[in-house]
Amino acid sequence: EIRAQLVEQQKCLEQQTEMRVQLLQDLQDFFRKKSEIEMEYSRNLEKLAERFMAKTRSTKDHQQYKKDQNLLSPVNCWYLLLNQVRRESKDHATLSDIYLNNVIMRFMQISEDSTRMFKKSKEISFQLHEDLMKVLNELYTVMKTYHMYHAESISAESKLKEAEKQEEKQIGRSGDPVFHIRLEERHQRRSSVKKIEKMKEKRQAKYSENKLKSIKARNEYLLTLEATNASVFKYYIHDLSDLIDCCDLGYHASLNRALRTYLSAEYNLETSRHEGLDIIENAVDSLEPRSDKQRFMEMYPTAFCPPMKFEFQSHMGDEVCQVTAQQPVQAELMLRYQQLQSRLATLKIENEEVKKTTEATLQTIQDMVTIEDYDVSECFQHSRSTESVKSTVSETYLSKPSIAKRRANQQETEQFYFMV
Amino acid sequence: EIRAQLVEQQKCLEQQTEMRVQLLQDLQDFFRKKSEIEMEYSRNLEKLAERFMAKTRSTKDHQQYKKDQNLLSPVNCWYLLLNQVRRESKDHATLSDIYLNNVIMRFMQISEDSTRMFKKSKEISFQLHEDLMKVLNELYTVMKTYHMYHAESISAESKLKEAEKQEEKQIGRSGDPVFHIRLEERHQRRSSVKKIEKMKEKRQAKYSENKLKSIKARNEYLLTLEATNASVFKYYIHDLSDLIDCCDLGYHASLNRALRTYLSAEYNLETSRHEGLDIIENAVDSLEPRSDKQRFMEMYPTAFCPPMKFEFQSHMGDEVCQVTAQQPVQAELMLRYQQLQSRLATLKIENEEVKKTTEATLQTIQDMVTIEDYDVSECFQHSRSTESVKSTVSETYLSKPSIAKRRANQQETEQFYFMV
Repeated sequence: EIRAQLVEQQKCLEQQTEMRVQLLQDLQDFFRKKSEIEMEYSRNLEKLAERFMAKTRSTKDHQQYKKDQNLLSPVNCWYLLLNQVRRESKDHATLSDIYLNNVIMRFMQISEDSTRMFKKSKEISFQLHEDLMKVLNELYTVMKTYHMYHAESISAESKLKEAEKQEEKQIGRSGDPVFHIRLEERHQRRSSVKKIEKMKEKRQAKYSENKLKSIKARNEYLLTLEATNASVFKYYIHDLSDLIDCCDLGYHASLNRALRTYLSAEYNLETSRHEGLDIIENAVDSLEPRSDKQRFMEMYPTAFCPPMKFEFQSHMGDEVCQVTAQQPVQAELMLRYQQLQSRLATLKIENEEVKKTTEATLQTIQDMVTIEDYDVSECFQHSRSTESVKSTVSETYLSKPSIAKRRANQQETEQFYFMV
Repeated sequence: EIRAQLVEQQKCLEQQTEMRVQLLQDLQDFFRKKSEIEMEYSRNLEKLAERFMAKTRSTKDHQQYKKDQNLLSPVNCWYLLLNQVRRESKDHATLSDIYLNNVIMRFMQISEDSTRMFKKSKEISFQLHEDLMKVLNELYTVMKTYHMYHAESISAESKLKEAEKQEEKQIGRSGDPVFHIRLEERHQRRSSVKKIEKMKEKRQAKYSENKLKSIKARNEYLLTLEATNASVFKYYIHDLSDLIDCCDLGYHASLNRALRTYLSAEYNLETSRHEGLDIIENAVDSLEPRSDKQRFMEMYPTAFCPPMKFEFQSHMGDEVCQVTAQQPVQAELMLRYQQLQSRLATLKIENEEVKKTTEATLQTIQDMVTIEDYDVSECFQHSRSTESVKSTVSETYLSKPSIAKRRANQQETEQFYFMV
């Protein structure tokens, strides 16, 4: 019965090792496949970046970029976007490489180690089982011996008892009135008593010997029983645990390190990605129409440089180059000046009105174009119910009617702004 | 000359708008392509997760997992790894979706807006240019008028001068001794003087009229000159800037929002990814041989349950079930006990030695398998020199000799451990 259990234990350990090897094989296959996916992703990103890099490299902007790094802010964002894709491409290639050349290798080694450990533990458990079976066999032997000696002791005892009974009978018979018996008969009887006594003594000796043997055998049995129970206890409580520990030796620690390598790679990818995004965010923060306008006008100095003031071109030595206001010109000029003054006052009032309206409209447009509608966190909620997430997503950024309405509104306001 | 510059300005603004539209087109193409890449990546990850999920779903472990969530810690890590891939797959699909249905749409709208704004600004600038040209033409006209009137004034003046000279000559001649001249001649001369005087008066009037006209024209010219310079100044300093602002209206703000949508999506992907990795890290922290051993033994209760203690099986009514130690058995037992005692003492000492060695060896192995060699940060350094990074990478985790050496070392130690 115990032997069957020992075999079953061995089977369990073997099964555990097989499961581990299978798991490690799955992990290797998994990371090999993921490595391929990451590599393909990396290559696609690289191609994407390269395609647009090549396109921009030829443009004037890019040459200027190389020259003085002084770019229009949207173009700067665009270049950083391409840089980020390149960075992601490199990082995913590194990830793929670490999977293939580090993580998978570790799993392979753990698998080898597990198998080797199991073999070692099998050898040890074989030895332990041998020892245990020896002990059990011995117990069986001493028990049998005890039973045998005890049986012999019992049989010797019963034989002794029988002899004693015969002796008693003989003595009882010799207690009969002596005169009734013949001499020769008396002589015969005495020799018979002697014979019985001798037999009894012999049986007594035999019994004592057997009794002692039986006691010794029982003692041996009891001691062996104790020892066996101790051995079995030791095996089940300590050795079995040690055997499992032996199979486990380093398994969890190595698995831990392999998975930590994976985690380290992933966390580092994340950090790098985050750094890149922060750079882009800075550039987006620096999207600035004013400095771009400045740069734009500097790019075309001939077009935007104000012309020289028109100088007075005197005619053939006319030396007067100021407004002369003698009579009768003076009166005329005064009249004109007064007309202009009143016209200017009217225009100023009108202009003030228009300015107010324009500023209000512009503010409305500014508010419209700076509305903070770019948070897409909701799309990344990992709730259990996929359905509910999808509906939220479509509500937030896919609700075309609301966007269309907003755009119509915006264009209307624009129209009004330009009309004014 | 100014007209040419105005045309050039218009061209610059047109070129700027074209560049913007081109940039926005590039951004759309870029995100469309990236959306495809993300979708493909997502699908590959999904396939990967599904492949291994399907494989594990059928196993006993998984059913147990569904039942009581009580998994062996490495299996738990494995399931979380698959969950993480699923999560990444979903997140990259969401990213792809946001690119396609949100970010690209925004760029399209900005492109439309830019074109519309440019058209509006073109209309306005056309009007402004018309006005400016009108002013310039007027300046030219009044200058011409001034020149004409001034010329006329000069010619009238010279004619007047001539008349005055003639009059002087006439008066000079009449100053000749009067007696030398005949009466009729004198009469003729007087009428001639009168004629000259009349002519002089006429020329004087003509000159005064022309002089006044010329002054008025010059005044007009000077005032128009001032006004023109003011207009030109206003156009170059204010209107031109406003025109560019008009083209820019909302461009930077909308671009900002579009790019922030992209950033929001990327940051959220990162956060989600990080959460998933943290879950795995927790599971890796919980990789624990002790509880797994417990679980393993509970999984196979029949194999690992210690058997019942062997009970004393007495033989045929033998009622003694303890070691009996009467003479002569006692002496024998005592001797045996003493022998065992001394043997035990020797074994204890030996055992203590072995234990020390074993523990030291085990510690060495533990140290070997828990060495913290899983940090791969160096691989993600984005230094400028790619070459130097690569060499660092290969030094850290690809140095096969060092790994092989370490492994050989580990196995040697293991061997020693088991031998002991």
